Amino acid sequence: MIQKLIEEITKKNAPVVVGLDPMLSYVPKQIQKAAFEEFGETLEGAAEAIWQFNKGIVDAACDLIPAVKPQIAMYEQFGIPGMVAFQKTVAYCKEKGLIVIADIKRGDIGSTSAAYAVGHLGKVTVGSKSYAVFDEDFATVNPYLGSDGVKPFLEVCKEQDKGIFVLIKTSNPSSGEFQDQKVDGVPLYELVGRKVAAWGEECMDGDYSNVGCVIGATYPEMGKIMRQKLPKSYILVPGYGAQGGTAKDLAVYFNEDGL
Amino acid sequence: MIQKLIEEITKKNAPVVVGLDPMLSYVPKQIQKAAFEEFGETLEGAAEAIWQFNKGIVDAACDLIPAVKPQIAMYEQFGIPGMVAFQKTVAYCKEKGLIVIADIKRGDIGSTSAAYAVGHLGKVTVGSKSYAVFDEDFATVNPYLGSDGVKPFLEVCKEQDKGIFVLIKTSNPSSGEFQDQKVDGVPLYELVGRKVAAWGEECMDGDYSNVGCVIGATYPEMGKIMRQKLPKSYILVPGYGAQGGTAKDLAVYFNEDGL
Repeated sequence: MIQKLIEEITKKNAPVVVGLDPMLSYVPKQIQKAAFEEFGETLEGAAEAIWQFNKGIVDAACDLIPAVKPQIAMYEQFGIPGMVAFQKTVAYCKEKGLIVIADIKRGDIGSTSAAYAVGHLGKVTVGSKSYAVFDEDFATVNPYLGSDGVKPFLEVCKEQDKGIFVLIKTSNPSSGEFQDQKVDGVPLYELVGRKVAAWGEECMDGDYSNVGCVIGATYPEMGKIMRQKLPKSYILVPGYGAQGGTAKDLAVYFNEDGL
Repeated sequence: MIQKLIEEITKKNAPVVVGLDPMLSYVPKQIQKAAFEEFGETLEGAAEAIWQFNKGIVDAACDLIPAVKPQIAMYEQFGIPGMVAFQKTVAYCKEKGLIVIADIKRGDIGSTSAAYAVGHLGKVTVGSKSYAVFDEDFATVNPYLGSDGVKPFLEVCKEQDKGIFVLIKTSNPSSGEFQDQKVDGVPLYELVGRKVAAWGEECMDGDYSNVGCVIGATYPEMGKIMRQKLPKSYILVPGYGAQGGTAKDLAVYFNEDGL
């Protein structure tokens, strides 16, 4: 799957991912108004508003960008109608040729991570049938539980040619509270990075691995170091714009091949 | 909310939580058969089977136990029908007087954690209206992103009298890969525990805090130490039974008041 992402990035000459994290308050008033007129100020109305907002963004941007990153929390908060909007957004983006990186940050004990992995990236079995449920291309994964929580995702990545991005160093201000703590002189995020390299070896797809990592744009000095330590991993870099990351900060996250 | 849990534990004389983590393969064949006859071997059929299975457990156990812990991944893997079954299960358990500890292990940057917090424990705003969506009593939270990811949950806990259990030391075999790493001689799970104590101070509810923690039954020696270091926090102890934790292992997780 990482090769497909690379192809799309190269074809569109744009190593960018557009976030689809619609806060209802940021959705233009006329879109909200139309949705509320049809469904009332209900969860269905909210879901319709964010879906229409997303659709507008996707229609406008799909020829220019390779990938989108919907943040599931922004849909999940609106319950079942929100989850329907999430699923519809994922399907629509794929229909438009976009690669979908679902920002779900799941991670649990083995059997539970397996359920998340099949539900989001793989196929879930029901009796003699199996179904691709959310069918995203990539998902973000939280590493706090260690290998047990990540391996079920690796299995699905191998079987279905999908990918994951494991959180290493997140973009938020307090990410250092635990992630920067030093273990024998090595920060925790780097220890997680070493595991990402090992997990990634199992899931190579050409020169890069289907196991990438997440490092916030707000920490470019750490991004620079980790770029060197993880030459085969794609780095998903959130935090550009609203969170304070600048274009200049981003340069260090690229390899010499521009990827 | 922790006081309500304590009351129920005392009333029913049972400091136990029953997991509602239905793996479809463990659901009795006759329940699966009935569900598949009605809905086919579909996601709806799977959701119906786990809902009927849950209903049977809840009907049988609700007079004996204070609380249940549904694991959302087991529902989410079946997509929208699965999420409907999750929501129905939460509502039914509450109707039967049970306290619902939703094992969701969410955690993200601030604005995103806020969406999870309002969606699962609080109320989400749509125009001039607000809705309690999943409306669980407690939720589990992943601490990897630090305070930013936890504080939105604290806000909702204070406003709505709800609670959280923060992952400290999880029950799975590889939990030590990162959680046991020592920072200046102190294991990471203990550093997280110190933060839990600080977060908990903000959310006291009688003698205990609405901010508890998760420590696996499979690590009783760590549970014993953390019990002493976190006297005001409830400890949610998964891993009894299938994962290898025994009744004897559990004794150390209690305070002298038996709670």
